[in-house]
Amino acid sequence: MVGGRLVGQVRIVGAGLLGSSIGLGLRARGIETIVHDASPAALALAIDYGAGRAATELDDPGLIVVAVPPDLTAQVIARELSEFPNAIVTDVASIKLPLFEELKRLGVDTSRYLGSHPLAGRERGGAISARGDLFIGRPWVIATSNGEDANGEDAKKIAVIEDLILDLEAFPVLMPAEEHDRSVALVSHLPQVVSSLLAKRLLDGTDRSLGLAGQGLRDTTRIAASDPELWIQILSANHSPIVKLLELLRVDLDSIISTLSDPSAAGARRAIAQLLAAGNSGVSRLPGKHGQDRKFSSIFVMVEDRPGELARLLTEIGEAKINLEDLRLEHAPGALFGLAEIAVLPEAEERLLSELESRGWRIAEAYQ
Amino acid sequence: MVGGRLVGQVRIVGAGLLGSSIGLGLRARGIETIVHDASPAALALAIDYGAGRAATELDDPGLIVVAVPPDLTAQVIARELSEFPNAIVTDVASIKLPLFEELKRLGVDTSRYLGSHPLAGRERGGAISARGDLFIGRPWVIATSNGEDANGEDAKKIAVIEDLILDLEAFPVLMPAEEHDRSVALVSHLPQVVSSLLAKRLLDGTDRSLGLAGQGLRDTTRIAASDPELWIQILSANHSPIVKLLELLRVDLDSIISTLSDPSAAGARRAIAQLLAAGNSGVSRLPGKHGQDRKFSSIFVMVEDRPGELARLLTEIGEAKINLEDLRLEHAPGALFGLAEIAVLPEAEERLLSELESRGWRIAEAYQ
Repeated sequence: MVGGRLVGQVRIVGAGLLGSSIGLGLRARGIETIVHDASPAALALAIDYGAGRAATELDDPGLIVVAVPPDLTAQVIARELSEFPNAIVTDVASIKLPLFEELKRLGVDTSRYLGSHPLAGRERGGAISARGDLFIGRPWVIATSNGEDANGEDAKKIAVIEDLILDLEAFPVLMPAEEHDRSVALVSHLPQVVSSLLAKRLLDGTDRSLGLAGQGLRDTTRIAASDPELWIQILSANHSPIVKLLELLRVDLDSIISTLSDPSAAGARRAIAQLLAAGNSGVSRLPGKHGQDRKFSSIFVMVEDRPGELARLLTEIGEAKINLEDLRLEHAPGALFGLAEIAVLPEAEERLLSELESRGWRIAEAYQ
Repeated sequence: MVGGRLVGQVRIVGAGLLGSSIGLGLRARGIETIVHDASPAALALAIDYGAGRAATELDDPGLIVVAVPPDLTAQVIARELSEFPNAIVTDVASIKLPLFEELKRLGVDTSRYLGSHPLAGRERGGAISARGDLFIGRPWVIATSNGEDANGEDAKKIAVIEDLILDLEAFPVLMPAEEHDRSVALVSHLPQVVSSLLAKRLLDGTDRSLGLAGQGLRDTTRIAASDPELWIQILSANHSPIVKLLELLRVDLDSIISTLSDPSAAGARRAIAQLLAAGNSGVSRLPGKHGQDRKFSSIFVMVEDRPGELARLLTEIGEAKINLEDLRLEHAPGALFGLAEIAVLPEAEERLLSELESRGWRIAEAYQ
């Protein structure tokens, strides 16, 4: 791993998923990271995990990253700016305009502050879920909010935050805060609400009905498992653009309910077709191919449902000197086999396949 | 591969994804399959792919599987029953009650017919996407529609179709047609409509906005890429239960729009929390979803990030004669530990914990 662009100490306030992941990623670059958290237990865990060292009286960070819950972000930014008069301060909160307005209300001098937002995360929070590679290949918005341009003091702030982003192998996107908030309402907050609405319907299903669920339902409801505490804050803070989108969705929902109430009526099939085709077009606008941001290749191996089989598989993969990047076992109720999803670096995929086949393992081709 | 349960010839009518996959799977068991399709080109492709041989005058199939588009299914079933008076006939259409009613309207004697529905598929269709292992581990509903029970003639039909299902390594689920249709409305058709509604909103987004999309949006909109032709038929045929679900969803949508319009109002945050928590509960009801299946207990073990450690863990679990129900490894590059989530039957949890601790494994208590 080559050294980082950032020079000097980086102080990370908030030892949750994002803060700890930033710490792990920067330390892998040889950058000195200092972790702070109001919770001693959370701090100790993050340090155990290798996210950085504890703060000392002598710290002199050039950059401070505030990664605390949204409702605390403004006051922590204000405190950090005042405690560390030489540091540039950024944050990673997922809504930018209300935060900037709150800082103005608090009378904070924002000349050393510029907000940012990494478009990365996981369903699970906490240092225990942190990954140094969480941000690789992901966009990371630098949210301009005060007419910043690439000159003078602004240029310096932007450059330091860009270095942070590039050191974590994300890519910086400079965007006004208002545009950022409208964008995440569409690509993140609307899907969250819709997924929760859909998942709520499962409460009425019988176990037998839910036993028929497939990947489509799993995919559409996966993010409904997200942390309510965090999302109450996000949805409340960014409510205006979200409500606009929900109202547009309601118009389409009303229309499809009306159409499906009498699908043999004149024009009904065309109306259904138009919704489905619009969905086709919408999803085709997403950049890149589905699954493009997977860094690993997955192979699905059928594993007999008896003790020791999975261990034997992993032992044999180890004997073949192939490094496992990720592993997941899927057990379908009633099936004789589990499916082990084995993720490896793409360059190892072919050799893994031939090693496994030569040892008699069955590869589930349908899932490749 | 052991031989199949089915004896005699199996005739498959319709050489699309499902028909061809059934052919490939049965032939892998050594079963003689005959493929037929109204399109000579589709038929030739399926035969090329190894789904079976072409029909001859001398064919005498014991089982016929009708796998044609939904709007043709009833008439093809009627024709097959009359052409092959010794065969049991099933189909794989995704809605069962309207089909059975259509057969009744057509005056078809259904004593040798029993509908079924494999809960399996891919976004891509056609023989070219067919896989012999498409059905492995998936539920396959046998849709009773005439008060069938496991006696007499009914028992014979059911047994033959069960053999088909077991030969393809799927698992049979016996269920009245009406219950089946209500179930797939919930687990398949509602998610499809919701995903299309959500994906349609992407048409209004700018490229810059969509550039911020992450896995959550990709997952929730993936099935919006499905084939409109097929889905018009499915949604029209099963419209009643779908409309009921959409109307319930609309009540919740109206409520969250109203709440988010003024998130600082009294009770607003609680209302948002209730939707999100209901989504959490809904998604947790999906069987087999890792860490959330109420049938299993999960234990999180910290695994050092070096080759062979996970295999050693699993070997030791095997030595303790404890069967893994599900496994997931969170392998976090940059972190000093990976986190193995091990799901076992609840009655095995305590013994697993003590076995692991006595062997020196660190349990991630924070996650239990």
